[in-house]
Amino acid sequence: MRTIIIGGVAGGMSAATRLRRLDESMEIIVLERSGYVSFANCGLPYHVGGVIPERSALLLQTPQSLARRFGLDVRVHHEVIALDPSRKTVTVRPPGAAEPTELTYDALVLAPGATPVQPPIPGIDRALALRDVEDTDALVAATAEARTAVVIGGGFIGVEMAENLVHRGLQVALVEATAQCLAPLDPEMVAPVHATLVERGVDLRLDTAVAAVDATGVTLGNGHRLPADVVIAAIGVRPDSRLAAAAGLEVGERGGIVVDEFCRTSDPAIYAVGDAVVKKDAQDGSDVLVPLANTANLQGRRVADVIAGAGAAVRPVLGTAIVGVFGLQVGSTGWNEKRLRASGRPYRAIHTHPSDHAGYYPGATTIALKLLVDPANDAILGAQGVGTAGVDKRIDIIATAMAGGLRAAELADLELAYAPQFGSAKDPVNMLGFVDENQVRGLSDTVQWHELDAALADGASLIDVRTPGEFAAGSIPGAVLIPVDELRDRIIDLPAGPLVVHCAVGIRGHLAAMLLRQQGREVRNLDGGYRTWAAGMAASQARESASGAHG
Amino acid sequence: MRTIIIGGVAGGMSAATRLRRLDESMEIIVLERSGYVSFANCGLPYHVGGVIPERSALLLQTPQSLARRFGLDVRVHHEVIALDPSRKTVTVRPPGAAEPTELTYDALVLAPGATPVQPPIPGIDRALALRDVEDTDALVAATAEARTAVVIGGGFIGVEMAENLVHRGLQVALVEATAQCLAPLDPEMVAPVHATLVERGVDLRLDTAVAAVDATGVTLGNGHRLPADVVIAAIGVRPDSRLAAAAGLEVGERGGIVVDEFCRTSDPAIYAVGDAVVKKDAQDGSDVLVPLANTANLQGRRVADVIAGAGAAVRPVLGTAIVGVFGLQVGSTGWNEKRLRASGRPYRAIHTHPSDHAGYYPGATTIALKLLVDPANDAILGAQGVGTAGVDKRIDIIATAMAGGLRAAELADLELAYAPQFGSAKDPVNMLGFVDENQVRGLSDTVQWHELDAALADGASLIDVRTPGEFAAGSIPGAVLIPVDELRDRIIDLPAGPLVVHCAVGIRGHLAAMLLRQQGREVRNLDGGYRTWAAGMAASQARESASGAHG
Repeated sequence: MRTIIIGGVAGGMSAATRLRRLDESMEIIVLERSGYVSFANCGLPYHVGGVIPERSALLLQTPQSLARRFGLDVRVHHEVIALDPSRKTVTVRPPGAAEPTELTYDALVLAPGATPVQPPIPGIDRALALRDVEDTDALVAATAEARTAVVIGGGFIGVEMAENLVHRGLQVALVEATAQCLAPLDPEMVAPVHATLVERGVDLRLDTAVAAVDATGVTLGNGHRLPADVVIAAIGVRPDSRLAAAAGLEVGERGGIVVDEFCRTSDPAIYAVGDAVVKKDAQDGSDVLVPLANTANLQGRRVADVIAGAGAAVRPVLGTAIVGVFGLQVGSTGWNEKRLRASGRPYRAIHTHPSDHAGYYPGATTIALKLLVDPANDAILGAQGVGTAGVDKRIDIIATAMAGGLRAAELADLELAYAPQFGSAKDPVNMLGFVDENQVRGLSDTVQWHELDAALADGASLIDVRTPGEFAAGSIPGAVLIPVDELRDRIIDLPAGPLVVHCAVGIRGHLAAMLLRQQGREVRNLDGGYRTWAAGMAASQARESASGAHG
Repeated sequence: MRTIIIGGVAGGMSAATRLRRLDESMEIIVLERSGYVSFANCGLPYHVGGVIPERSALLLQTPQSLARRFGLDVRVHHEVIALDPSRKTVTVRPPGAAEPTELTYDALVLAPGATPVQPPIPGIDRALALRDVEDTDALVAATAEARTAVVIGGGFIGVEMAENLVHRGLQVALVEATAQCLAPLDPEMVAPVHATLVERGVDLRLDTAVAAVDATGVTLGNGHRLPADVVIAAIGVRPDSRLAAAAGLEVGERGGIVVDEFCRTSDPAIYAVGDAVVKKDAQDGSDVLVPLANTANLQGRRVADVIAGAGAAVRPVLGTAIVGVFGLQVGSTGWNEKRLRASGRPYRAIHTHPSDHAGYYPGATTIALKLLVDPANDAILGAQGVGTAGVDKRIDIIATAMAGGLRAAELADLELAYAPQFGSAKDPVNMLGFVDENQVRGLSDTVQWHELDAALADGASLIDVRTPGEFAAGSIPGAVLIPVDELRDRIIDLPAGPLVVHCAVGIRGHLAAMLLRQQGREVRNLDGGYRTWAAGMAASQARESASGAHG
């Protein structure tokens, strides 16, 4: 039996090596378009930036090492130009060969990955993209003498590229067509990331289109011009499904190869995995494209099991992801608020700003965490985190809780490893559970940063329960200062009617709200406090000023 | 209504503040034996070591700050000397008062914590312990001029104290009565921790009793003598249940106060939380003492809910814990192998040695992970981890998976946040799932480090599939070297009969085992490879040499 695998990186190579472990006798041929297999895809930007100094570190395996260890027939520079499901053949053009050759297969695995999107912008051909080792080499060469760079697109890759080009000493502009970078995050969560990019010298242009690219720079939609010795296109990726589509395999609306839960395409002998395929969303079962390395690797393993005769189904995806941005950890799992709102799905949002570890132990830093919860059944719908430490851990814990079907309030009961250098006796994840539990029990009611204006317009009064020093350093317009420690003695000073209370992060505000509610007052606590509100305002102002520049 | 809370640290103060949020009108009196409340219990050793330089950092709240913010009546230096459940009174001796006074309560919360165990050793009175701020002050004073210290007891506190005394520049001996420190870990997992202690200059004496303490040092059971300007007793803690027992409340065999899942003692108006109470084990519902800050804090919150009229049950405990040891993170959750074996409960053990993050990204370090699984239903029974980074995260993920009822094989499907600086596309937790899945499916069979001798005695041959260089640097006696990359061509060189294969950590061994099994060979892979075996041998030798010294 012969299995041919098209694509020799994450999903394809996981399939190939697993298949060999399961079946010593199978002929396994891996056909890779580029000159490299098993390379460190997610490390490419960091080699451009010199963070991973040795190019060889990116090359985890070679065709030779894979032949020795796994008995794989790995052929690089082998682009498959056609496949014929009816005859079970692929047509491939070996390097240097005059004619293409045909290979027959018993099983075929498509693992072609995704292609960088090239938007229809005049001159965009000049822009470099980052997909493989060759692209990386080209980028390293192009940036060697460059002083200025424009990165088009503020997604994960664009932001990683911007950081790494700064590491290389370039002046970098990052141009993003929407009002925010890093789409998996909500605007108030990404605001500190924007601030960090700007602090580190990135010329960040949000809500800004690129009109044209030419030999010396980029012209923006607003007419401004950015000089650029190097232009990088990182607008996003689309499934590399040309071959599948040309062969008549079913392809989804957004270009992804359609597969069932066993990674089977519409042809019974052809499987597909990784960034090229349509996945099922864990929340609603809808079709989604989730170009993530961990998903690709797992699918590669699972498809090998299926081909070898005993495969488990691939689960719907949450889409847990993380990116580093100049020392910030920016992570997310599940759905964000934007998506929940767009889909009309009810939700509750919870914002907290805990320390990554006990505040009394040196080096503690603040994390911004956000949890999204289904108000009907307290299911966890998603989470986001931004901070310099401990975000990966909390996102992973929440993703695991989601996989285990824990309700949000059950986060309170999680027993997490505590010593002061690693966490808190009440871990940030426990705290999310405490806040949720209070809401489930009807003990507390919150107002979101973007709902505050409407609440005040409806006649609520805003009480700032922080200290005078905090108030002086920045306050919400219209807020009346009554420090929480004075509140019991100053009930009489409170305005009549509904109240919104707030503190810096929500904790003192919660105490104040509990206190006032017991006085018979109608009161809500500003979720996430001044800090979340200020981040939300920064996000809104970025959008408005960008809109102004457009207008 | 008046609630009196005895003990003003983790569980007691969590109860007090939560109770106030729930009920503004309740009179809440906190009686604290020592001079401080809400202090950073888990930070005390680090202040002794100067890691937390400011003493004030340990003092999170004062009676005054708690009065202002929470309207609590907090009385320090108030030792309760008796309680009378029939009259609902506590008898307390205020500082400086000639006579004790009596206070009545409607509800009483016992949160007295645990007391350091003082073993019956001549001269032990000289030894200092570490329970509260006063103890910490005494230790700081005692170590100021000291050059030598002996720490008796290698539990979490003893090991933390040994490290921190080294930070202060003392010559430190750590004397542990059993064959290993850090009892929650199994011996092969703790071996690298022992090595680290020795490398950092700690004179580590395992399997060693202390016969006597005198003014200048410590005499060991084996007759050796250790000089000691300071002696610290950290043998362990026992529930501080004297008051409860004297009042006729039900107390468990090991001295813990017996409570139900709502933290109610045998008296309907008296509750108890924290280190002083008996908890239910999550695995088998048995009575356990788990003196951990996170459990105490959660119980404090829950008991307040109960007293206020709407409390949820406290869950049985896994006992997730972590300790730092000279930069090593040493974590665990659930049951260990020792306990499983002692209880006669069937289990499978899995050892891995993954990198904390992608190996190609700078700074990756190796973690030792161990997973314990129920062979009947694939339930996760426990996990342990040792390494310099990322252990806390993996233990927390596994603890969360256990809380969510995930089977071990389902760890394979977890979607964990991946970027090369934070993890791997196949995270260490996913890898545990892969290994388990192979065992569940009968694809692989392993032999544990401590079973190897018996397997070889039974006639199995041992094949080392590492490289000649690795073999030369250290090998298992009797192993025949056949590198995995040569195995397919050297099947004929293999001895007849059953085989055990091994590599450094288990991955190449797995490939070799899969390959040989398909050749019809009876083969097992040494779980965790040479690394786990060597750690197990180090643990065994420590035990034997200690026994020799005794004999």
